[in-house]
Amino acid sequence: MDSRDAVPVIGVTLGDPAGIGPEIVAKALAKEEVRSRARTVAFGDACVLRRAVEVTGVPLRVVPVSDPRAATGDPSAIEFVDTSVLAAPVPFGRITAEGGRAAVAAIDRAVAEALAGRIDAIATAPIQKESLRAARIPEIDHTAILGARTGARDPMTLFVTGRLRIFFLTRHIPLRDVAAAIRIEDVRDALVRAHDHLRALGIDDPNLAVAALNPHGGEHGLFGDEEERVIEPGVRAARDAGVRVAGVVPADSVFHLALEGAFDGVLSLYHDQGHIAAKTYDFYGTVSFTMGLPFLRTSVDHGTAFAIAGKNLARSRSMEEAIVQAAAHAPAFRRYREGQRGR
Amino acid sequence: MDSRDAVPVIGVTLGDPAGIGPEIVAKALAKEEVRSRARTVAFGDACVLRRAVEVTGVPLRVVPVSDPRAATGDPSAIEFVDTSVLAAPVPFGRITAEGGRAAVAAIDRAVAEALAGRIDAIATAPIQKESLRAARIPEIDHTAILGARTGARDPMTLFVTGRLRIFFLTRHIPLRDVAAAIRIEDVRDALVRAHDHLRALGIDDPNLAVAALNPHGGEHGLFGDEEERVIEPGVRAARDAGVRVAGVVPADSVFHLALEGAFDGVLSLYHDQGHIAAKTYDFYGTVSFTMGLPFLRTSVDHGTAFAIAGKNLARSRSMEEAIVQAAAHAPAFRRYREGQRGR
Repeated sequence: MDSRDAVPVIGVTLGDPAGIGPEIVAKALAKEEVRSRARTVAFGDACVLRRAVEVTGVPLRVVPVSDPRAATGDPSAIEFVDTSVLAAPVPFGRITAEGGRAAVAAIDRAVAEALAGRIDAIATAPIQKESLRAARIPEIDHTAILGARTGARDPMTLFVTGRLRIFFLTRHIPLRDVAAAIRIEDVRDALVRAHDHLRALGIDDPNLAVAALNPHGGEHGLFGDEEERVIEPGVRAARDAGVRVAGVVPADSVFHLALEGAFDGVLSLYHDQGHIAAKTYDFYGTVSFTMGLPFLRTSVDHGTAFAIAGKNLARSRSMEEAIVQAAAHAPAFRRYREGQRGR
Repeated sequence: MDSRDAVPVIGVTLGDPAGIGPEIVAKALAKEEVRSRARTVAFGDACVLRRAVEVTGVPLRVVPVSDPRAATGDPSAIEFVDTSVLAAPVPFGRITAEGGRAAVAAIDRAVAEALAGRIDAIATAPIQKESLRAARIPEIDHTAILGARTGARDPMTLFVTGRLRIFFLTRHIPLRDVAAAIRIEDVRDALVRAHDHLRALGIDDPNLAVAALNPHGGEHGLFGDEEERVIEPGVRAARDAGVRVAGVVPADSVFHLALEGAFDGVLSLYHDQGHIAAKTYDFYGTVSFTMGLPFLRTSVDHGTAFAIAGKNLARSRSMEEAIVQAAAHAPAFRRYREGQRGR
């Protein structure tokens, strides 16, 4: 354990310069609750960051550092690595190739610093798919960029809010296709990976549950048989692989029970199942982790909000939570990775 | 407006005498927060109620009244209408024909009193399907019993918790059948009925939203086309019928927005969609209303919990909320019904 264990260094990327990303980063870094828990280094263009400070009126100087380890944690400053793509900021709310290039340059540099061990984790502000496309960047989103840069094969999204930790078996598919998309081996694999990812966050012997697919868990086949036919067998296979899984629990109680501490993590079978739970419970407090990378990465779970960019209307709470959660979990994650390497 | 407007009279049925119903009624009626908001009259067997008072140790006398209007609201007593089915209480946790008969007798009497205008609303403790079957009662649950006794054709469930009000388009069907079960005219009809039911609760010009079926509302057909093909046309048809509907909103934000006050009610397309939202937000505070009856009826949204019956372990918060919510909405409901009759 080195001295950074006390206050981890979190790289914070500004996101698309035409969106609310730079604003919410500036606002978040002005918060004492954030600064006391994380040493932060922003990644992006100097002119974009300066404009964000102006727009938000936060009382912070903008101080470039060439190496994130040189950041002093000065509470009156935003220390940042200048990724120097833009000579002047792009207009707010406009899709531009420059905006896409600037957003990706910040991510690329933060990834390089994380891989080199000079920052402990990355918290990302939102980027814009269309700007990436305009810049002819082949990846369509953060997960694809991070996967491409790190060679990670199976990044897995994890939502964290309060005591809720939610993984997803399927995500961006129509609801009508969900039932047929659930296979025994996928349930097993997702549980095995969720188990490992929770251990990477410092939970030694995590207790998982699977949200049921059908109302009341199907009531023994009365309202659907996927629980008996596919999900339970997947749970048993995961148990055979050494994963602790309490079982398949009706979806309208499993998240409540997890909030009460009964489970360390819940495997949600489809997008809205876990999204509704997390975001109805705490919309702005829901942080998205990308697990399975060589470093920890958190993200706000909202978009660039071009319509309100530059107006100092965007709320920074999601960004604050993304930074604080990254810092909270970074020490355990580093110990876990070091343990893996030591094997 | 008569004098009962200040403190409505709520009939509280004890539910299956072998379950936790009588206990949670006794506990709820011992709470000052409940007694200050509702004048209550229990419905059930004297011996069952006496046992519940013993089990829970609440400092209340048990006082029979022959007419609910004779109830004085004495805070040291549970005033009740004795439905006199049982000579002695049935054993806890046991399915019996007597238990089923006793549970239904209490409901029948409460319904008769509500239809006669001698109580303002009914809050029900849970009953047991198997006990009804043992008693050869043809109806399978509360909704069926209430429908049969009142001639109501389309009772509609409404969940209320905090500012959330959630209706359901479909309920006890497998998830894989949900997409195909959504028809334009059903969406329209459900919205028209939801509109009327919210008006019956005192919301003059309710603003409704429909939860989307697919992730991100389908993203223009990318993850499912039901929004464009069926749900939006149903919304437009409802608007043509004079219903105010904000539109189809992604399911992971619609409940949050409703909690923030953006919508007075949300139409959930399937069971778990609305259930996850309400019960993750406030598990014990979720009250189920049965709308479309000639009187107001609320219910706890849990079962008889035979496993813990008689042990004083059951929490009464759902029962308390069911009584308080019934009382809170009873005056508006009565005015609405009187307005309907006056037409």
